[in-house]
Amino acid sequence: MSGWSRILESVPNFSEGRDRAVIERLTAPFRDRPGVKLLDCQSDENHNRSVITAVGEPEALAAAVLEAMEAAVAAIDLRRHRGQHPRLGAVDVVPFIPVKGLSMTEAVAVSRRVAEEAARRFRLPVFLYEESASAPHRRNLADIRKGQFEGLPEKLRRPEWLPDFGPAEAHPTAGAAVVGARMPLIAFNVNLGCDRLEVAEEIARRVRHIGGGLRFCKAIGVALRDRGIVQVSMNLTDYTRTALYRAFELVRIEAARWGVPVVGSEIVGLVPLAALVDAASYYLRLEGFRAEQVLESRIYE
Amino acid sequence: MSGWSRILESVPNFSEGRDRAVIERLTAPFRDRPGVKLLDCQSDENHNRSVITAVGEPEALAAAVLEAMEAAVAAIDLRRHRGQHPRLGAVDVVPFIPVKGLSMTEAVAVSRRVAEEAARRFRLPVFLYEESASAPHRRNLADIRKGQFEGLPEKLRRPEWLPDFGPAEAHPTAGAAVVGARMPLIAFNVNLGCDRLEVAEEIARRVRHIGGGLRFCKAIGVALRDRGIVQVSMNLTDYTRTALYRAFELVRIEAARWGVPVVGSEIVGLVPLAALVDAASYYLRLEGFRAEQVLESRIYE
Repeated sequence: MSGWSRILESVPNFSEGRDRAVIERLTAPFRDRPGVKLLDCQSDENHNRSVITAVGEPEALAAAVLEAMEAAVAAIDLRRHRGQHPRLGAVDVVPFIPVKGLSMTEAVAVSRRVAEEAARRFRLPVFLYEESASAPHRRNLADIRKGQFEGLPEKLRRPEWLPDFGPAEAHPTAGAAVVGARMPLIAFNVNLGCDRLEVAEEIARRVRHIGGGLRFCKAIGVALRDRGIVQVSMNLTDYTRTALYRAFELVRIEAARWGVPVVGSEIVGLVPLAALVDAASYYLRLEGFRAEQVLESRIYE
Repeated sequence: MSGWSRILESVPNFSEGRDRAVIERLTAPFRDRPGVKLLDCQSDENHNRSVITAVGEPEALAAAVLEAMEAAVAAIDLRRHRGQHPRLGAVDVVPFIPVKGLSMTEAVAVSRRVAEEAARRFRLPVFLYEESASAPHRRNLADIRKGQFEGLPEKLRRPEWLPDFGPAEAHPTAGAAVVGARMPLIAFNVNLGCDRLEVAEEIARRVRHIGGGLRFCKAIGVALRDRGIVQVSMNLTDYTRTALYRAFELVRIEAARWGVPVVGSEIVGLVPLAALVDAASYYLRLEGFRAEQVLESRIYE
């Protein structure tokens, strides 16, 4: 069995969550393709949006993503698109995430190649975001997407919102796309043994970056009404620099001010192996542990 | 990319650690074989012994192991074998370890099939050990191996040491073999911030099974003279029941009696992913975490 030495992940978001035939055309490029594996496709009818998760060797994955973008541009008409989720185009956003054997710099290079080729082939304005952004004000997806598809004609007239690639004019049916590389995001929630939402909200304010907390942590307070407890719900946007255990311990320390215990935690969705190895290493005080010592990593190397 | 849904590991030990040509014939069956991957081969000249680590789909791995056993029986003559490590035969011991997607019961079944076929094809007395043992007194490898190759003629005359398969007579050049299934073993050492060996030895006595400690823990005290500290060196023989974190915390608790701090720990060699996930889950108080949430496990499923 020969594994992949380099693994890239992509989680493209398309503005179609209802029409099964179209969704099938969006996922098809990721199926039965050497060097690519489709992990998931979640379609939401209310959002009218589909989120595909796929991994693969960088070149093969990039080719699959471009094919899916082509299918989306051909099939989705934003002039008639209604849904609860904000969107800028048929291909709304295409993040690339380095998983194994390649650096962020290499993931950025792949995202730029895909953005450039998509702009040329589909006559689509494409913005680079996150780690691939060409200017600080273009890093944040929400800022790029502000005004949505309907606001594109006006937005594209402003010099600070010229696209990175493609025409300075919205594609008539497909709008514009956002492409870039980012770190994997970990959804990590810490449960508190109390029912006062204001406590969870106050702790969230203290641990998150904008409140003076951890650099790669976003957080809000949430009530779990069925369990009668509250939760600090976090997104860790770079677990290699803001570690899982650090976020956990900081919530615990802040909760102690109210005499509130941490009663549990949960990881929602996928988590990179390295984030868990890092947590185990911290608590067990492991010296010199290498990820290659994990049996499973050797099997698939 | 299609992975293996069921993964078995085998770590066969052969009584040849010096002759490169013979060692090559022992590893060859694990190379370039669909469904099998050779992870490691360590040959020790003093022990005059080679330890191969391989993983694979159960049937493919069993076929590779039998081929290697055949090569060993053909090439190794125990009458002229000298080495520091005790040994019973040319194929000394063949453990099978369930890694993924199969139960211990299934691993035992594979070990029995290999033992039976090896006995028949090579006219070799074969003992089943560990989880595959046919009686409690035959579980422990050291008990089966006692008397070594030279003591086999006398041992095989005793009713309690009739082999499980094959003739009740030693193979003239290859002796006998031991085959069975066991849990993966984790070599886990905890370092103490003091230089008194007797403290490490006393803690080892308390945490290990025979001293009244943890059921699947063997432990000794060791001096790390170059660092001026001591260490509790443990083998965890079933991490699913004696967890890594439990052994760690118990050493810490016992060390507190002497006012000695735990300054670090180390895992020697390979460790199953589940053992680390378990440790991270304990310390982070993770609720409902599943191994499939580890990104890498999804890629190779």
